[in-house]
Amino acid sequence: MSQTQHVNRRIILASLPKGAPSARDFRLEEVPVPTVGEGQVLLRTVYLSLDPYMRNLMDEVGPGYAPPVKPGEPMVGGTVSRVVESKHPGFRPGEVVLSNAGWQDYAVSDGKDLMPLGGLARPSLALGGLGMPAFTAYVGLLDIGQPKAGETVVVAAATGAVGAVVGQLAKLRGARVVGIAGGADKCRYAVEELGFDVCLDRREGKLAERLAAACPNGIDVYFENVGGEVLDAVIPRLNNGARVPVCGVITNYNAESLPPGPNRLPLLMTTVLQKRIRMEGFIILDHYATRFEAFRRDMGAWVDAGQVKLREDVVEGLENAPAAFMGLLEGRNFGKLVVRVGDA
Amino acid sequence: MSQTQHVNRRIILASLPKGAPSARDFRLEEVPVPTVGEGQVLLRTVYLSLDPYMRNLMDEVGPGYAPPVKPGEPMVGGTVSRVVESKHPGFRPGEVVLSNAGWQDYAVSDGKDLMPLGGLARPSLALGGLGMPAFTAYVGLLDIGQPKAGETVVVAAATGAVGAVVGQLAKLRGARVVGIAGGADKCRYAVEELGFDVCLDRREGKLAERLAAACPNGIDVYFENVGGEVLDAVIPRLNNGARVPVCGVITNYNAESLPPGPNRLPLLMTTVLQKRIRMEGFIILDHYATRFEAFRRDMGAWVDAGQVKLREDVVEGLENAPAAFMGLLEGRNFGKLVVRVGDA
Repeated sequence: MSQTQHVNRRIILASLPKGAPSARDFRLEEVPVPTVGEGQVLLRTVYLSLDPYMRNLMDEVGPGYAPPVKPGEPMVGGTVSRVVESKHPGFRPGEVVLSNAGWQDYAVSDGKDLMPLGGLARPSLALGGLGMPAFTAYVGLLDIGQPKAGETVVVAAATGAVGAVVGQLAKLRGARVVGIAGGADKCRYAVEELGFDVCLDRREGKLAERLAAACPNGIDVYFENVGGEVLDAVIPRLNNGARVPVCGVITNYNAESLPPGPNRLPLLMTTVLQKRIRMEGFIILDHYATRFEAFRRDMGAWVDAGQVKLREDVVEGLENAPAAFMGLLEGRNFGKLVVRVGDA
Repeated sequence: MSQTQHVNRRIILASLPKGAPSARDFRLEEVPVPTVGEGQVLLRTVYLSLDPYMRNLMDEVGPGYAPPVKPGEPMVGGTVSRVVESKHPGFRPGEVVLSNAGWQDYAVSDGKDLMPLGGLARPSLALGGLGMPAFTAYVGLLDIGQPKAGETVVVAAATGAVGAVVGQLAKLRGARVVGIAGGADKCRYAVEELGFDVCLDRREGKLAERLAAACPNGIDVYFENVGGEVLDAVIPRLNNGARVPVCGVITNYNAESLPPGPNRLPLLMTTVLQKRIRMEGFIILDHYATRFEAFRRDMGAWVDAGQVKLREDVVEGLENAPAAFMGLLEGRNFGKLVVRVGDA
């Protein structure tokens, strides 16, 4: 069933996942389209963004920077939506806005969280290359990572919504860029289309050895968005004064307890000390007020000039969002993952 | 045997320690007093500094920021020395200088690494409270940790050469200070003499629970100088935006391989991300050119005004340096550890 005018389909968090989410942790339910009060608008979802951080909202204790989704509630998420009814003076029916309508066909907003998208030719980019994931790459790489010309930058999930932009911005800064991705097709794309110097297929094994060979001058910036085996391979190659912006640790999101040993924490701490490493976590929500305008200006120019390429992985239909999300956590997407929920 | 005019006693690294150093890894040998060439001075050691970083120099692969000591060579170390003979125009016999003469009675220097100590009333302080350890506390806490009034600062080895200064500087900045030390006498000293708000005896067990109780508002700055169990207890209590200057990880220095699991690295990374933590390693050698003058001015004033108290643990006799150093790695010293090698 697809989007209609009279039913609000929504994906409910049916149960808190134990480890990796499974299909039974989600439930599609149909409810009436909500009614609009004074000062509100009714939004119809056109595109829904699927992003790794959402896994963190599916635990009993949330990540701290955003409230968790409780079982029985709809999944939350950024959307591109069309205003279909407005009792708010600032919005007219027909307008396309960036919003947080969640995994559903319709939502009501008081307007405070809406950003008009004007005549954006590809409005879905507001969820990716001109939105939160690319903004994450921008702040993490440029403000925290601060790559210099000639330095080596490593990024995993190299063709994902964040990693692909990290690598391209690092190239714009004159750095040597080594990506890591899952599959030969993604690696070829990273090198041939995105301009990475090297891209290693993490499925091929011996990652540590291959990464060392790909970084003959060590690693100056490691943009951390996966954790696990990639981080283990990176640590011994970090140079003096290396920077490690920590954007995400997707391999840990499904973990229910500490993994078995050996304990690699002491090795990290010794490396941080001896190599004078700066490691800094950031949550992109903190940076909109100060950096989003600069990002929009810079990124818009780079995209218009063809200096940054943006690839989307578009899944059709709200009902397919759970499977697509589970695939995202396994790296099965190829480009920024969005769900086309309804007609533009 | 004590210092004489005709023999140079020196402590040789006899063998590379496996794990914790033992007495057999050191050897005292007697050689002739070296002769002085043009442009050189002969130095007689008055005080020798013993510091945890020296353990890092006793491995086959050094720490990177300083060359390792090779078996058969004298141990290196900072000293307060008296010039006994000079063929250098900048130094006169009788002058007291800060130097790097190592674990021995006599050494020759070309003057480049010497700093005249003028009329310093307690010249041994140039090795501690007015020297490298306190400078480490100053840069790590003030430049990297940046504590604000009302924030909570945690430091281990709370009565050691670095930790005692960290805590007192944090108090000068208006922070709440929680120390960790080994033994009731040290904890009492930290609270009653140094002005810490709380000091926990790490020997009493249940450190994580006691630390949580001692930090009801969480931890804003953790000055990392020990690693291990203390770090494990700190991680869950770190606040949003916490800073972790990494000065040392003494509990790891003797480790020969990765410790058994569970692997706590993923937990650290998740915490760094979700709490937006900045963790930064530093090697104090990097900061002399830019910050040492400010440190000397500030610290001199604080010590003169009685705002910072300095305690020394003085061991008599070069021959006792190995045992004192082994005790340092186990936390048996109480205050800045120095060896009085000869008369002032």
